[in-house]
Amino acid sequence: MSLVLDSAAQDLLFREARTANTFTDEPVTEEQVQAIYDLVKYGPTAMNQSPLRITLVRSAEARERLVAHMAEGNQPKTAAAPLVAILSADNEFHEELPQLFPHFPGAKGLFDGSREAREQSATLNAALQSAYFIIGVRAAGLAAGPMGGFDATGVQKEFLDDDHTPLMIVNIGRPGEDAWFPRGPRLESERVITTV
Amino acid sequence: MSLVLDSAAQDLLFREARTANTFTDEPVTEEQVQAIYDLVKYGPTAMNQSPLRITLVRSAEARERLVAHMAEGNQPKTAAAPLVAILSADNEFHEELPQLFPHFPGAKGLFDGSREAREQSATLNAALQSAYFIIGVRAAGLAAGPMGGFDATGVQKEFLDDDHTPLMIVNIGRPGEDAWFPRGPRLESERVITTV
Repeated sequence: MSLVLDSAAQDLLFREARTANTFTDEPVTEEQVQAIYDLVKYGPTAMNQSPLRITLVRSAEARERLVAHMAEGNQPKTAAAPLVAILSADNEFHEELPQLFPHFPGAKGLFDGSREAREQSATLNAALQSAYFIIGVRAAGLAAGPMGGFDATGVQKEFLDDDHTPLMIVNIGRPGEDAWFPRGPRLESERVITTV
Repeated sequence: MSLVLDSAAQDLLFREARTANTFTDEPVTEEQVQAIYDLVKYGPTAMNQSPLRITLVRSAEARERLVAHMAEGNQPKTAAAPLVAILSADNEFHEELPQLFPHFPGAKGLFDGSREAREQSATLNAALQSAYFIIGVRAAGLAAGPMGGFDATGVQKEFLDDDHTPLMIVNIGRPGEDAWFPRGPRLESERVITTV
């Protein structure tokens, strides 16, 4: 009763949505990816820095190269998912700040001097955007399978460059047979929320 | 057309939702916070590690202590918001893994040896959960004002402990007058999405 988001949307995005481990063969189209991006690009980031970059692995050759860098347990699903996306943080995001945050012309200068500060900010904010992306995949009626089990240095060398840090790899598609384990328990709110 | 989430929900969560800088006096209730948590707790994290911790700053005394650690530009809105939440990552999240990820008894052991690995995983996954939380605040019909401009060491010492890293501070409430700047531009998808 305390939420205004309708119950069907709550189910679609959170309550019935699950991390899928198997997928049907139905392709994920460019139109779907575009619609997901056009929705989730509005999610907030610090100074609108928007550091998330998305590499869609569509060719069989690229898929094979990616699978080789996945943890063994993630290889079969990464090989089988209709679409796989590498989500990365652009550590040179500050170059875009004059365009993205025009009402504060000093924004870029805050990051010019320190690659370390840029990496920290890019990772945090691209992680926020990765969550928005997962929500967007679900908003398209698809299941996301985000994975952290991969060789980050290998993926970076194979698909990205020194300025882009891979954060996670996401399988995308319609859930197949036995797509998930029973849902794990969540922490009671008393364990998570403290009031001062 | 490519999304199945209804258009009103898209607007509520992404398209019309904005980062608010001013708020009305209407309180944010415990019931609202509970409903937000009970929805967004289902958002996925790696091995269900769920490292996000939420500190609700409700007392006038605690609010004053928090405002002192905010960047100057963030102080007035942090002082005025109906509710302020400190979002932090629990770097000792692995202690909960036997409960949260019971089908892989070795999960805790993966993190026992390295505080650095725990911090990295906790930060990334608590950032994902911070985004789910922002979406949840919007699902409650409220505006969120996430802020990174604060003295992290000061906030950690004042409100948390060595095992909890503050990630962001979020003002929560109904938007007040002149609550936001015009929305900043977003990157074209061609700049963000690459296909291989």
